[in-house]
Amino acid sequence: MEYTLAELATRLGGELRGPGDLRISGIAAVDQATPRDLSFIAQKKYLKKVSASRAAAFLVAPEWAELGRPCIVVPQPYLAYARAAALFAPPPWRWPGVSDRAWLGQSVQLGAEVSVAPFAFIGDGCRLGDRVTIGPGCILGREVEIGPDTYLHPRVTILDRCRIGARVIIHSGAVIGADGFGYVPTPQGHEKIPQLGIVVLEDEVEIGANTTIDRAALGETRIGRGTKIDNLVQVAHNVVVGEHSILVAQVGVAGSAKLGKRVVLGGQAAVVGHLEVGDGVQVGGKSALTHSVGPGQVMLGSPARPYKEFLAMHGVMVKLPDLYRRLKKLEQQVAALTGATSPETES
Amino acid sequence: MEYTLAELATRLGGELRGPGDLRISGIAAVDQATPRDLSFIAQKKYLKKVSASRAAAFLVAPEWAELGRPCIVVPQPYLAYARAAALFAPPPWRWPGVSDRAWLGQSVQLGAEVSVAPFAFIGDGCRLGDRVTIGPGCILGREVEIGPDTYLHPRVTILDRCRIGARVIIHSGAVIGADGFGYVPTPQGHEKIPQLGIVVLEDEVEIGANTTIDRAALGETRIGRGTKIDNLVQVAHNVVVGEHSILVAQVGVAGSAKLGKRVVLGGQAAVVGHLEVGDGVQVGGKSALTHSVGPGQVMLGSPARPYKEFLAMHGVMVKLPDLYRRLKKLEQQVAALTGATSPETES
Amino acid sequence: MEYTLAELATRLGGELRGPGDLRISGIAAVDQATPRDLSFIAQKKYLKKVSASRAAAFLVAPEWAELGRPCIVVPQPYLAYARAAALFAPPPWRWPGVSDRAWLGQSVQLGAEVSVAPFAFIGDGCRLGDRVTIGPGCILGREVEIGPDTYLHPRVTILDRCRIGARVIIHSGAVIGADGFGYVPTPQGHEKIPQLGIVVLEDEVEIGANTTIDRAALGETRIGRGTKIDNLVQVAHNVVVGEHSILVAQVGVAGSAKLGKRVVLGGQAAVVGHLEVGDGVQVGGKSALTHSVGPGQVMLGSPARPYKEFLAMHGVMVKLPDLYRRLKKLEQQVAALTGATSPETES
Repeated sequence: MEYTLAELATRLGGELRGPGDLRISGIAAVDQATPRDLSFIAQKKYLKKVSASRAAAFLVAPEWAELGRPCIVVPQPYLAYARAAALFAPPPWRWPGVSDRAWLGQSVQLGAEVSVAPFAFIGDGCRLGDRVTIGPGCILGREVEIGPDTYLHPRVTILDRCRIGARVIIHSGAVIGADGFGYVPTPQGHEKIPQLGIVVLEDEVEIGANTTIDRAALGETRIGRGTKIDNLVQVAHNVVVGEHSILVAQVGVAGSAKLGKRVVLGGQAAVVGHLEVGDGVQVGGKSALTHSVGPGQVMLGSPARPYKEFLAMHGVMVKLPDLYRRLKKLEQQVAALTGATSPETES
Repeated sequence: MEYTLAELATRLGGELRGPGDLRISGIAAVDQATPRDLSFIAQKKYLKKVSASRAAAFLVAPEWAELGRPCIVVPQPYLAYARAAALFAPPPWRWPGVSDRAWLGQSVQLGAEVSVAPFAFIGDGCRLGDRVTIGPGCILGREVEIGPDTYLHPRVTILDRCRIGARVIIHSGAVIGADGFGYVPTPQGHEKIPQLGIVVLEDEVEIGANTTIDRAALGETRIGRGTKIDNLVQVAHNVVVGEHSILVAQVGVAGSAKLGKRVVLGGQAAVVGHLEVGDGVQVGGKSALTHSVGPGQVMLGSPARPYKEFLAMHGVMVKLPDLYRRLKKLEQQVAALTGATSPETES
Repeated sequence: MEYTLAELATRLGGELRGPGDLRISGIAAVDQATPRDLSFIAQKKYLKKVSASRAAAFLVAPEWAELGRPCIVVPQPYLAYARAAALFAPPPWRWPGVSDRAWLGQSVQLGAEVSVAPFAFIGDGCRLGDRVTIGPGCILGREVEIGPDTYLHPRVTILDRCRIGARVIIHSGAVIGADGFGYVPTPQGHEKIPQLGIVVLEDEVEIGANTTIDRAALGETRIGRGTKIDNLVQVAHNVVVGEHSILVAQVGVAGSAKLGKRVVLGGQAAVVGHLEVGDGVQVGGKSALTHSVGPGQVMLGSPARPYKEFLAMHGVMVKLPDLYRRLKKLEQQVAALTGATSPETES
């Protein structure tokens, strides 16, 4: 892909400052760009690297536009970078049509321009929308439904009856619809509770590599529209995640938890089962949410507390050795005082 | 599947209260049931939802039997639900026989009614018991042994010489028998210790999606009969887990740890290497067990402590900002007192 | 494999003490060895098990050489054990040549003696060095480069353009080069930032089962030579890990973190994004490194602190219930004193 700077300014909706015919063939960070690359200044700290940068041109915000270098002025340089990156991204690879090395079960319905790569297995009764891409080694169970333009990277597993929306992206190794973890303890051992529900991924969800989202015991496990889930995340049975939420890598959400919209769970955070988590709640990395919280709260720690309380508590925790010394000194002083002022010693 | 209420009462060993010819075709939670569904009251809090429920009938305990609705009275409604769910569960999917799109190595021994789906790879010398199911995309190394009625979901990997018992269930993406993580540090780098042992999964073990259980350096990594392991769990080399234990999602057990029977490790908990963990020990979610513990202990925190001690400690931790203020006030008071009563200031 | 004790002494560079013609066919732990096995004493505590051991002979350090049993005296018994284990290890399994059940894309370049097993998918333009092994079910995207003698266990995924060095080992289920987790928040939702970079694994890296290493947004995610990464580890986009580092199972390293050489991250530890971690830094298991640290530091806790500070803090934390009682007692005493010595009560 190659564009002139003028073309890029037009496509990105920015203001051209510099030679419109400058030819750009890639995008790179300010300190790694070549003279063929566009770069971008998304944070003030990168401004000082501009003079040493070999980049052909820069995406910049209006307040930093006086770079003395070719640039495109945009209101949000980071967003413009994302969109410029999409212009330079190679088109995603797709097998042309349905490979004769794939296996398609009975009564499979394929939309227009569906791509099925070698070693993919499509179970009986699956329905794939237009332009769906099934990468090499993907396995779909029976009666899986996938909406249009959804892209499965290699080696994704989606099990029986799960329903995947449109424009969903699922990365390699993810497992959608394995059994939830449910047993009844008996004197003879743990008796398995059959997991009869499904997983629903709504439109524009993205699921990271090797993430697992379990099917419901009964009913649905549901991931709301536009929610993005990173790698190695565990979402247990009957969890509901609202729209446009973010679950960072290695998060675990226990069974039947209900998360609102635009919730953010930091890396390795955990949410205990059956909780209700309000819209816009943020849980810090490695924190453990152990009780339900209303909208907009920011929670930290394990167990998690409102972040100001956590920070106040932690601020004292780091002083504990000093506090202990001070406590012991007080005890000595008070013992001396008590001795000095007690009637027995005064008499 | 469809049953009459009378048939269900018989199969579940419960007492019929209501029309025996009522036809039931599914099972659902009390607030999601349709008029064709059986539901169940496993906790008192669900009793108040009965009047609004559309369910055809309910599984209930004797003390809640006066529902005014058709029901089956059972001593343990949750267990009865699990067994009813098994009655309504679709039979697990199996490829009929051995697919010609699978690959079987030399000297593979297959029991009666073994199912091997497309794109499964069975290494030389594997032995599969009667009615074993190998899902699409599963890979077995050389000389793997699998007992009767074991079910491998799609895309399971079991590596050389590992031994899997009877009635085991392994979910998609699990890796049984990858090398343990062992190196000897040298000035030139980390020298790999060949991992010569195996993994043994005893009968009725269940292994979650994308869980990893490493082969022993020497000898065995062993998971005891009836133990259930959730998704994304790491079990390191030479670990031994006793019978009927529960490892919840994202748990990590480090090398050579020995866990007793009926141990429960909560989600994201960790057990340090070489520990001994007694029968019936429970470790809370996100806790880190850093020393050996005797039978029956309940441990919490990171590092984990007996839960009463942890709770007592944590109860003070949340008051630390207040305690710090009180300590400072005491210091001022004592300074005043000391000043007032010290000989120097008195003179 | 079978060796005489004399052969083993020669190959391991040790001193023979005992019958050189003793035949040895395996290696085992001191308490599990059979009369055909070599064993080893790597720690003093195992010395007392020697008398009951059935092992044919032992690897021992010079100071413990007076065992009264056949042995090979070596300066580092644990290292000698690793090397002896390599002598007894079965040769790693390889498909002979390129299976006609694998799929090779266009313009794939294969070195000498490359092995490609059934159901492997090699994308267009891949280049595989001499003696590379591609296990069953592995998927390589387009233009992946793999150096000589690298071994991919079954069901590894390496995505477009990633570069893998020589003598690398990658375990089953690992995903190298999935998209980094990057979005720009907008009022309409999270807009995906195309991930245009790659992953580079340098020579002699080892990657554990179901571990995920994401491709860079721009540029490279890089794992330095000789670094060993355990199972279920998450390495985010643009992370750089120096040479000879160790990342234990379930570690998470967030985006753009830069780790030095010989860094050790304990199991389930986390490193926050954009940090710089000096050479030789050690981070304890389950700890969360939240700020950059210079070389050689040992960090513990969540958030992590220098381990001596953490231990001092934790030593007081466990006493908090007692401290709280002592604080309340002091308050009572001081109240009494203040009452007793205050001018108002004295007058």
